[in-house]
Amino acid sequence: MCTITIWNEFRHEREDEEVAAVYPEGIHEALATVFTGEEAETEDGVEYEVRTATLDEPEHGLTEDVLDATDVLLWWGHEAHDEVEDEVVDRVQERVLEGMGLLVLHSAHYSKIFKRLLGTSCSLQWREDGGTERLWVVDPGHPIADGLDEFIELPETEMYGEPFDVPEPDRLVFTSWFEGGEVFRSGCCYRRGSGRIFYFRPGHETYPIYENAEIRRVLRNAVAWASPTAGAPRSFGERE
Amino acid sequence: MCTITIWNEFRHEREDEEVAAVYPEGIHEALATVFTGEEAETEDGVEYEVRTATLDEPEHGLTEDVLDATDVLLWWGHEAHDEVEDEVVDRVQERVLEGMGLLVLHSAHYSKIFKRLLGTSCSLQWREDGGTERLWVVDPGHPIADGLDEFIELPETEMYGEPFDVPEPDRLVFTSWFEGGEVFRSGCCYRRGSGRIFYFRPGHETYPIYENAEIRRVLRNAVAWASPTAGAPRSFGERE
Amino acid sequence: MCTITIWNEFRHEREDEEVAAVYPEGIHEALATVFTGEEAETEDGVEYEVRTATLDEPEHGLTEDVLDATDVLLWWGHEAHDEVEDEVVDRVQERVLEGMGLLVLHSAHYSKIFKRLLGTSCSLQWREDGGTERLWVVDPGHPIADGLDEFIELPETEMYGEPFDVPEPDRLVFTSWFEGGEVFRSGCCYRRGSGRIFYFRPGHETYPIYENAEIRRVLRNAVAWASPTAGAPRSFGERE
Amino acid sequence: MCTITIWNEFRHEREDEEVAAVYPEGIHEALATVFTGEEAETEDGVEYEVRTATLDEPEHGLTEDVLDATDVLLWWGHEAHDEVEDEVVDRVQERVLEGMGLLVLHSAHYSKIFKRLLGTSCSLQWREDGGTERLWVVDPGHPIADGLDEFIELPETEMYGEPFDVPEPDRLVFTSWFEGGEVFRSGCCYRRGSGRIFYFRPGHETYPIYENAEIRRVLRNAVAWASPTAGAPRSFGERE
Repeated sequence: MCTITIWNEFRHEREDEEVAAVYPEGIHEALATVFTGEEAETEDGVEYEVRTATLDEPEHGLTEDVLDATDVLLWWGHEAHDEVEDEVVDRVQERVLEGMGLLVLHSAHYSKIFKRLLGTSCSLQWREDGGTERLWVVDPGHPIADGLDEFIELPETEMYGEPFDVPEPDRLVFTSWFEGGEVFRSGCCYRRGSGRIFYFRPGHETYPIYENAEIRRVLRNAVAWASPTAGAPRSFGERE
Repeated sequence: MCTITIWNEFRHEREDEEVAAVYPEGIHEALATVFTGEEAETEDGVEYEVRTATLDEPEHGLTEDVLDATDVLLWWGHEAHDEVEDEVVDRVQERVLEGMGLLVLHSAHYSKIFKRLLGTSCSLQWREDGGTERLWVVDPGHPIADGLDEFIELPETEMYGEPFDVPEPDRLVFTSWFEGGEVFRSGCCYRRGSGRIFYFRPGHETYPIYENAEIRRVLRNAVAWASPTAGAPRSFGERE
Repeated sequence: MCTITIWNEFRHEREDEEVAAVYPEGIHEALATVFTGEEAETEDGVEYEVRTATLDEPEHGLTEDVLDATDVLLWWGHEAHDEVEDEVVDRVQERVLEGMGLLVLHSAHYSKIFKRLLGTSCSLQWREDGGTERLWVVDPGHPIADGLDEFIELPETEMYGEPFDVPEPDRLVFTSWFEGGEVFRSGCCYRRGSGRIFYFRPGHETYPIYENAEIRRVLRNAVAWASPTAGAPRSFGERE
Repeated sequence: MCTITIWNEFRHEREDEEVAAVYPEGIHEALATVFTGEEAETEDGVEYEVRTATLDEPEHGLTEDVLDATDVLLWWGHEAHDEVEDEVVDRVQERVLEGMGLLVLHSAHYSKIFKRLLGTSCSLQWREDGGTERLWVVDPGHPIADGLDEFIELPETEMYGEPFDVPEPDRLVFTSWFEGGEVFRSGCCYRRGSGRIFYFRPGHETYPIYENAEIRRVLRNAVAWASPTAGAPRSFGERE
């Protein structure tokens, strides 16, 4: 059993008709189907329990109880990063250090929690041009690439380009090629404390990226990879 | 199901009475019990298939067929590293790059296969003094440390000290403290191609290190960690 | 020319007689002599310009102007980490990402700026026992180890033990052995943005660690290593 | 003073008219001008001593004396990797572990010495199509990127594509974008023993890549980065 909490800002979908047309129930509900849909059952043999949480709920839906019961947290944010309370960021950070997995999606590179855990600006270059992206698997031995072909092609995306101001990833799984001439480290693994963090670039509020079967596969692979393990004690403090 | 091949030089045990007294059937058979004993069944819920191979068998027991059927190979050698044929080293290296796991134990730091995969001299300092060793878990979030306490203590060991001429590990799990004043990076993770490699210092031909329950636990954890995953295609060559 | 700013909390030295006896002018002035003393002139051929800054100065002495003129910042704090204003932490972080070097000394592992840049709790174990420490050079090829012997021995220190809750270092230069049975990764290199960060464990408010010639050598080596380089543009934002 | 030895297979240039037209004196002589030309004097303030060595000289020009006097070795090979004697490869490897820098250029990814030091197949995908390549600086804080713009554009190159079967680089400086739809980690830093290794993709036997001013700049930056430092003793063996 793997317990997933999908966090979404959930503003765009209620404010912008174009976004609402693609994600009428919100991006979080679209992401939930990645784990509840038929392909998940067939492929993985894992039983997922999926919960969602959004910015405008009390404590952004991320209470102590919710986080304590979460194996892997998915994070989608875009225009309201600053409205996330520092107290909730503290709480999420602490849980990650204790072992909770974290998947940071697309524009969440600018979320408080990602910047907090990485310590850098997490800045990048971008262009809204609807060009083609190819995500090359640069680490074919990584479990997040399980079952993929040599690349994933997305016909229409927003471009994200280097430099990407993040610490050198522990492991780089994907590098994107963009039609317009840019590259981007689009699948980056980190560990902080006992927690595994995966940044995955694809996703957008209007391009239906999360309907792509291979992208969905990556999300399930990443959840499996980021799931907590038993570990040894994290004993700190004065020692006799 | 996880298929393990345990490779042992198997010379000491036949030539030296003191060694034979500790390991009458050979170190490989002692290591086999780590995976066939009762504790393995209780703890892991994994079914292991264990095979052994030794230096003096044809092709050192590591034929194409054996390697093709091996998920994780354990390697123990000490005094006859040079007698391992380069052709067999080539074959093992190729299988590791394709995804086979490799556990390199104690004095096998000087084995041809370890030096081949790491590219350095793998030299170190040592002293046969029977002092105490404490293996500190420096990465409590790593699955190889699952279920351990904050350190493992071995009352009598051979000392291995820094500098250890290996590439910076991808992940350092254990660092040893020695009574005589030395330290050593005693649990080092590497990936080469699609294969996972774990160097684990403990082990000796006369101290009964492999009877220690926590050391046995680490070996099982490491086999789980090093087991092959599906991955993506490793496609090389000319591209249209 | 290398411009150094040495930041010190400067509280202990004014409040505690025992500390004042060792560091009558404050630890910052003792550290300054590492770069202004005769050995620096003889050894390095580098001209240092040294400035100090302390907690109780306006903006903690770390104004925009001071930071803009700083190549490498040394940070010593112990009991008043929380009194450092977040605005100053933001400013220091930004300068590090732009390329300023940062040396984090001893108990500054718990400083806001170190935790900010690393994203973890930076917790550890400790014991005030005055035992012996040996800092083993585990990376003899690193420029921070230039001119050292195989280890540095400190006869009386406070113990810091693993686990040390930091991200896996980019490069581990020293690992400490402690008389009481512990080990510690005592010299850790990181890069964040264009800035180089070195955490160096030795130092204490009453043991005269900073008078040790080899420790002083390491501090000068680390400043040289952490000094900014020209780099390429860090261009972020929308791209045409 | 920095002493450089440029090693070249020097076969293509004598056997193929098209290659001879671009590099009449051999690629090694073209590379030598990177360090002897006017721009080197103006820019760097470093004095270089440059020597060349080729496959068909005795000991391939890489005698003990030559290697002992070399700070950084550049390696260019393409069609005759197998003709390099293992004894010379052993010797070069040993010198790298002791601290000599190594720049591995273009098709030398398949050289014996690079495979020896990295432990993997160093395979990749390629296509001779004369398309455009853009080398993006993904690590603008790295000294190998000093003085560059955000990318280097080469109008006509041979394509090299991922996956590139090398260990995860210690530091990735460049990632290439290719017109035909591929990406490649084209500037990879490694350390083995005390030696620094830089793999740099650009270069070709007929496209005049090494006349590009920015590529020349990278080669000088890389030589500076790879130059040996003093270090601490590499003491191995039995310890009292």
